[in-house]
Amino acid sequence: MDARTIKLDAGLVVHRAHPLNAETSVPALMGGVVMPNGRFYIRNHFQIPNLNAADYRLAVGGLVRRKLSLSFRDLMQMPSQTFFATLECAGNGRTKFDPPIPGEQWAFGAVSTAEWTGVPLKAVLDRAGIESSAREVLFQGADRGRVEGSSRTIPFERSLRLDEAGDSGAILAYVMNGEPLPIHHGFPLRLIVPSWYAVASVKWLTDIELIGQPFAGHFQTEKYCYEWQRGSEDAREPVTRMQVRALITEPNQGSEIERGDITIRGVAWSGIAPIERVEVNTGGAWHQVNLIGEPSRQAWQRWELVTRVNASGPAMLRARATDCAGRVQPEHAEWNRLGYGNNSVQEVTIRVI
Amino acid sequence: MDARTIKLDAGLVVHRAHPLNAETSVPALMGGVVMPNGRFYIRNHFQIPNLNAADYRLAVGGLVRRKLSLSFRDLMQMPSQTFFATLECAGNGRTKFDPPIPGEQWAFGAVSTAEWTGVPLKAVLDRAGIESSAREVLFQGADRGRVEGSSRTIPFERSLRLDEAGDSGAILAYVMNGEPLPIHHGFPLRLIVPSWYAVASVKWLTDIELIGQPFAGHFQTEKYCYEWQRGSEDAREPVTRMQVRALITEPNQGSEIERGDITIRGVAWSGIAPIERVEVNTGGAWHQVNLIGEPSRQAWQRWELVTRVNASGPAMLRARATDCAGRVQPEHAEWNRLGYGNNSVQEVTIRVI
Repeated sequence: MDARTIKLDAGLVVHRAHPLNAETSVPALMGGVVMPNGRFYIRNHFQIPNLNAADYRLAVGGLVRRKLSLSFRDLMQMPSQTFFATLECAGNGRTKFDPPIPGEQWAFGAVSTAEWTGVPLKAVLDRAGIESSAREVLFQGADRGRVEGSSRTIPFERSLRLDEAGDSGAILAYVMNGEPLPIHHGFPLRLIVPSWYAVASVKWLTDIELIGQPFAGHFQTEKYCYEWQRGSEDAREPVTRMQVRALITEPNQGSEIERGDITIRGVAWSGIAPIERVEVNTGGAWHQVNLIGEPSRQAWQRWELVTRVNASGPAMLRARATDCAGRVQPEHAEWNRLGYGNNSVQEVTIRVI
Repeated sequence: MDARTIKLDAGLVVHRAHPLNAETSVPALMGGVVMPNGRFYIRNHFQIPNLNAADYRLAVGGLVRRKLSLSFRDLMQMPSQTFFATLECAGNGRTKFDPPIPGEQWAFGAVSTAEWTGVPLKAVLDRAGIESSAREVLFQGADRGRVEGSSRTIPFERSLRLDEAGDSGAILAYVMNGEPLPIHHGFPLRLIVPSWYAVASVKWLTDIELIGQPFAGHFQTEKYCYEWQRGSEDAREPVTRMQVRALITEPNQGSEIERGDITIRGVAWSGIAPIERVEVNTGGAWHQVNLIGEPSRQAWQRWELVTRVNASGPAMLRARATDCAGRVQPEHAEWNRLGYGNNSVQEVTIRVI
């Protein structure tokens, strides 16, 4: 059970090696809910820290009644929880914004789903006891480095308000798809905040601090915020839950398909509510597709449509999802300065022969 | 997406290399439902056939209205289904029978769970059209060889009665945990008959034949039958659905555990009905454990108990499962000649220090 080796699958598209950033290639999205660990997209901000389960401690401090220092064994001994959750990078789809936006150049594959097992965050916070003056829970990872415009070394840190942390169902995960967390996915312990863009799910988690005011660190206020121009004003809003979205996984962009019955497949998810329906357009009307498997609030759902395409030549396939809260995927998501939350309807061009 | 390489995980205990047979080591059972492909137990009867998806055909014949010859692409184009299902070798636990029984010497790890995606068997049978004279569906794999007591080469073949096939929810699977079927798990196509002992889930499936009388092949009537002595008579019954069973995955057999709170974890499953309860005994009374995740008819469920152990010295841990059909795991399953279906309550000895 050596989590130290990074096994990458041929299905991953590596964007950068240092720090390691790679997206799942869309043809590698197959099956139901599970994305195998070797194909799961990878988003790192700094070099990958090399932690050791034997020496590992999780410190819980700040505005708590009892400071804790928990070993990996202590955490393993606590009651556990397990669920499937989709993680999506807030920058997924950034390359589809026009005009183009700097930052990791994600196409559509910075999203994957796994089964996560770990300790409920609530159980750890209950054990520490939260002081009434606490407002937010700050999570610090062991990864650190410099960010543009500063010469200081900073750790990766994110916070959740106490109400968000309480409602989130977050866990401190140590198992991913039945294996110890791979090193590049946060070994030995990471936060999983289901339904939120993955930036909230801090990897290599070593410190939890209860704080009395809103956290204003780099990854909370300078990055991972929607920034729009509204007339002469700037509007700003933090990235929180995932936008509703469908992704076409079959057929592949640019493929040649024989006339007649074609099968279109994909996944759909929303951080707000389970998926209610997915519709596919092959050039005319929108067709409602078949949703496969159980609806889930936290994990993507698979869908498929077998439909007839008679005309040969280029064809454009589009898919749009609607969640049970009534959110519909937009034709064009609003451009924002840092390129987050792009849930525009995807266009897949094929050639019918 | 090369399914030709056999990637084995360090967590597998290899019993035989030719044909490849390996069980999942119990400490490698972790997390929720998913067993990663590299740790999934392997049971082969013959050498692994090396099929190629491009040339592959599934023949459907016998008592049908239309004989079919389906390419891998034809199958991929058909509507699909996806679910989690536990596969257990009928011989799992054979080494725990006394007196000992020849055959693969499985301890407890010839059981694993994966998410399977494929074409419903029913859809393929509907497309062929079943003649009214048909009684059984015979499945043939591409694996073949000699069996003891015969010099003939035979294929691996198993049948299901039509009513069994119809009720089973079986699929012709081509995806296992989000990846193409690994070669040693039946690439490119295998049958998955949920809830049945895994012998029914024929790998490297190449032929489906509708037949008019009960199939009497080697793996149907000479193996994979319970055989008991009843007075001076022999009783015989085919192996069908999995027996109700709990497995302790933590702590490990022989481990040293500190006094105080200990966490006992495992999985439980039944081929008849979802798990209703699991009880654990650490030396005194039976304690009901916490079932984790959703109940399932087809997949194992995880369970856990945090309990206090105060006395130091050796201790014996036992777990027993009850399913919603009221079947309780027996203290000692009945010995049978070929060593199948051993769902005796497992005993894990630890040392409390």
